[in-house]
Amino acid sequence: MSSTTDDHRYVLMLGCPDRPGIIARITSFIADFGGSIVEAGYHSDVDSGWFFTRQAIKASTVPFGLAELRDRFSAVAAELGPDTEWQLLDSGARRRAVLLVSRDGHCLHDLLGRAGSGELPATIEAVIGNHPDLAEMAQAHGVKFHHVPFPKDPAERDPAFEQVRELVDAHDPDAVVLARFMQVLPPELCAHWTGRAINIHHSFLPSFVGARPYHQAFARGVKLIGATCHYVTAELDAGPIIEQDVTRIDHADTVGDMVRQGRDIERVVLARGLRWHLEGRVLVHGRRTVVFN
Amino acid sequence: MSSTTDDHRYVLMLGCPDRPGIIARITSFIADFGGSIVEAGYHSDVDSGWFFTRQAIKASTVPFGLAELRDRFSAVAAELGPDTEWQLLDSGARRRAVLLVSRDGHCLHDLLGRAGSGELPATIEAVIGNHPDLAEMAQAHGVKFHHVPFPKDPAERDPAFEQVRELVDAHDPDAVVLARFMQVLPPELCAHWTGRAINIHHSFLPSFVGARPYHQAFARGVKLIGATCHYVTAELDAGPIIEQDVTRIDHADTVGDMVRQGRDIERVVLARGLRWHLEGRVLVHGRRTVVFN
Amino acid sequence: MSSTTDDHRYVLMLGCPDRPGIIARITSFIADFGGSIVEAGYHSDVDSGWFFTRQAIKASTVPFGLAELRDRFSAVAAELGPDTEWQLLDSGARRRAVLLVSRDGHCLHDLLGRAGSGELPATIEAVIGNHPDLAEMAQAHGVKFHHVPFPKDPAERDPAFEQVRELVDAHDPDAVVLARFMQVLPPELCAHWTGRAINIHHSFLPSFVGARPYHQAFARGVKLIGATCHYVTAELDAGPIIEQDVTRIDHADTVGDMVRQGRDIERVVLARGLRWHLEGRVLVHGRRTVVFN
Amino acid sequence: MSSTTDDHRYVLMLGCPDRPGIIARITSFIADFGGSIVEAGYHSDVDSGWFFTRQAIKASTVPFGLAELRDRFSAVAAELGPDTEWQLLDSGARRRAVLLVSRDGHCLHDLLGRAGSGELPATIEAVIGNHPDLAEMAQAHGVKFHHVPFPKDPAERDPAFEQVRELVDAHDPDAVVLARFMQVLPPELCAHWTGRAINIHHSFLPSFVGARPYHQAFARGVKLIGATCHYVTAELDAGPIIEQDVTRIDHADTVGDMVRQGRDIERVVLARGLRWHLEGRVLVHGRRTVVFN
Repeated sequence: MSSTTDDHRYVLMLGCPDRPGIIARITSFIADFGGSIVEAGYHSDVDSGWFFTRQAIKASTVPFGLAELRDRFSAVAAELGPDTEWQLLDSGARRRAVLLVSRDGHCLHDLLGRAGSGELPATIEAVIGNHPDLAEMAQAHGVKFHHVPFPKDPAERDPAFEQVRELVDAHDPDAVVLARFMQVLPPELCAHWTGRAINIHHSFLPSFVGARPYHQAFARGVKLIGATCHYVTAELDAGPIIEQDVTRIDHADTVGDMVRQGRDIERVVLARGLRWHLEGRVLVHGRRTVVFN
Repeated sequence: MSSTTDDHRYVLMLGCPDRPGIIARITSFIADFGGSIVEAGYHSDVDSGWFFTRQAIKASTVPFGLAELRDRFSAVAAELGPDTEWQLLDSGARRRAVLLVSRDGHCLHDLLGRAGSGELPATIEAVIGNHPDLAEMAQAHGVKFHHVPFPKDPAERDPAFEQVRELVDAHDPDAVVLARFMQVLPPELCAHWTGRAINIHHSFLPSFVGARPYHQAFARGVKLIGATCHYVTAELDAGPIIEQDVTRIDHADTVGDMVRQGRDIERVVLARGLRWHLEGRVLVHGRRTVVFN
Repeated sequence: MSSTTDDHRYVLMLGCPDRPGIIARITSFIADFGGSIVEAGYHSDVDSGWFFTRQAIKASTVPFGLAELRDRFSAVAAELGPDTEWQLLDSGARRRAVLLVSRDGHCLHDLLGRAGSGELPATIEAVIGNHPDLAEMAQAHGVKFHHVPFPKDPAERDPAFEQVRELVDAHDPDAVVLARFMQVLPPELCAHWTGRAINIHHSFLPSFVGARPYHQAFARGVKLIGATCHYVTAELDAGPIIEQDVTRIDHADTVGDMVRQGRDIERVVLARGLRWHLEGRVLVHGRRTVVFN
Repeated sequence: MSSTTDDHRYVLMLGCPDRPGIIARITSFIADFGGSIVEAGYHSDVDSGWFFTRQAIKASTVPFGLAELRDRFSAVAAELGPDTEWQLLDSGARRRAVLLVSRDGHCLHDLLGRAGSGELPATIEAVIGNHPDLAEMAQAHGVKFHHVPFPKDPAERDPAFEQVRELVDAHDPDAVVLARFMQVLPPELCAHWTGRAINIHHSFLPSFVGARPYHQAFARGVKLIGATCHYVTAELDAGPIIEQDVTRIDHADTVGDMVRQGRDIERVVLARGLRWHLEGRVLVHGRRTVVFN
């Protein structure tokens, strides 16, 4: 889980069908121009026959710009086959996040704090709420808040979602964070923001999908509760999981106690998952993620 | 989680509708004969309006025998209402467990070790396997092994279950432990051993009910795997949960890795749950348990 | 870990030499006036021969005021011996905290958020910093900030500590929280605020006492890092521990990574410890604490 | 944490001063003969300027034997500088462990079980005890037990240690496991078995070095207890740490409770650390370890 914040890196993320020689090909490409790899992750998925890698190259050891690096690497990628997927991120580029919220402010407050202290590798461009409750919190941290009221009737929410979409897209964000948004995104928005929309669900998925997971957990009598950070897909609470964690409870904990204790897990799990996403540590393959942390 | 092993205790377990004065009534009863309470647990369940308590009384401070203690307390229990459920255990009485196993020996080996070192507050009276694989392991620890072959066709298993029932009941056990038994008990046996049959399921329930939970967990891409110790009921993997725990995995873990790492959780979760059951620390109320540990 | 926030309670905390009949005496006292106990914790410490209890009584079931309850209970306490220590808290009374900080704002930001959402059972009356860096953060949350500069020479810091003392004592706080204050309190202040001054230390004590614990942890090559919330005493980082927790690291984590990951543990451990202190869940006995949570 | 047990691998472990191009050099070497890398770990330690890697190569993709692979690679290693340290392990070779024990059998029983089920990648060649208590347990698992009595006077223990050394060395083991041996090895033995002697200490080091760590933990009032698996060095409990873990306790836990709960941590931490050592996943650098798991 290494990251030093003082250095400028170009981060290569790549997935392709596995075969011998891929690592040698990629690292020789980097070595040939004297590039210094400061962090490297590899994973061969035996099950799917797919290969994944993430390489963080010290930017100062690259004797040309990012555009040329991309250009040169595309030839290497082509050698690895037509199914190869890759991108090259610039750790020095400012990254942008937009947050969708409802009434519970604990995740929002936490992310605002991390952004303010420089811990989150992104600026929070805007906060959008379907209720106005958290406007003051966002503004106190110097972040613009938009209130988009949602009709009670789910069938009439399309215009509201359209407005949210416009507000979000105006910032071309690297991450659209559902920080306890409590609204189910329509399939078109899931598709539109695929790989960028990140949700925090207040249960240890796949247990307790949907509404009121702490009530479900109480009724079932589980001994641990959890939270799950995942990419949003059209199927509710079923997207690729980035991070999960749990905390112990016991019979004396009411639903209210679970809600309170769960917040501490939700905050941390969302913050971890979002940071990994922003640093280019998460590669999605089907319903699973490879997280190089 | 206190327990000193060197002292003799009478353990009162009680559940009844909640109302003021119950603790005073019970503890005054104990104080009146000079009884010393070495461990006490109380729980008022606001949701169900039920009250639960467990009291461990130093046996040497009880100036009469267990039979008379039970006799005297029954008058107190009667005052607490007709729905009151209670029992009085003697920590000095030998407790008995029978283990049902299949081919995986890690839970069996672990429990045999704990029983041998005196850590498990019970003797293992017998081990019954639907395969003969673990006979040698049981016998090396001085425990009798019975092989009861199960027909492939589930519809023809009744006689085998009947034989298991007879073998088990011959020992009148305090616990019937399904130590990775891999066979679903018929409803009659669940009912017959209700409150005594304990299963270890190799997932964090309610996730991944049924067969091959590690394969299910791999397919879903979860970041933690777990195990659940629960009382057996007629509904598969849905009985009251006694204990659960989890361990972290990552994308590089194959199903085989999960199986291996999961064993360490299964062993410990089963051993904890079984010990708590044997020490009279678990009170069941509907689908939930109160565990005074 | 039960607490419902919607009810008014009187909370009895008591420690005394153990002997039979104490629970009966106390609970009979409560039952005699029809008091309803909503939460009860008991602990007999075999080692020290001391008995501890915490009882939360539903205020609406007490037919007289807190003053009379205290008055009546003092007679019971007298029966339990001259060494008996007890107090009765009113959960409905506003509790006050003052925070001492330096430059790291993560604990401050977290506590301000919890106080703002009503999760922390106290108001934050003031924040005092030996550096001005966090003034803006406090003020954005509507809390007064005092900057008290500290001289570089430890021998010349007495006037600064005197000023801190005056600023703190003006609020007569229930908790003086060293939220990463980074200054060692002089013995007189430790004594003056005994039982009320709470520190968060960024290691799993007793490992890595004193300065730069993450650097110490890195050098030693530990595989987990932690944080400890404890009462402040004259001996550095040696006061009674209220709460601790840890998180896993690996060889790839730099000191900077530890600092970042450690913040998540520090925040939660301090918030838990402080809440338990404010709710009267922590009883100190020598160097150990009894925490009824 | 990947390992599939069904495949034959050659495992390269290497440490050398860091500079650009090392990964390319090593992986090109492997790619040149068509070798397939099934698992790869890399770590650049910024602090020490050292580079570490572990590569598991599918043996069936190496068109020559291990001896020639070693021979060919030695030329590559020479290019990486005179300080380069490396070894090549054959996962198909039988690995051997010798266990040193005293009276507590929980770690021994656990390792015997893992070895018996094929989970531990080694055979347990012999068990040596300074007390005869565990002879029966070893023999029941088909392992030879040697009793080497130790004089009470530490000054007179040299002959006993000499006898232990001879018994151990007769098996030329890959691991000498101090499975709760409770005797401090003399410096000569530490040096003789350097990098092969592995101890389990029943505390979260560096807290509670030396004797009776659970008593120390109780006295200090910590809220978590732990265990540490580390290489043995001449300085007591100060060798490079391979693995650690903790479990939560509370005020109600006596020293006896800690001993019991601690066993579950000791067992698992030792088993994990030993497995990683045997699979060539642990590289030592000074007082720190790099663990590719």
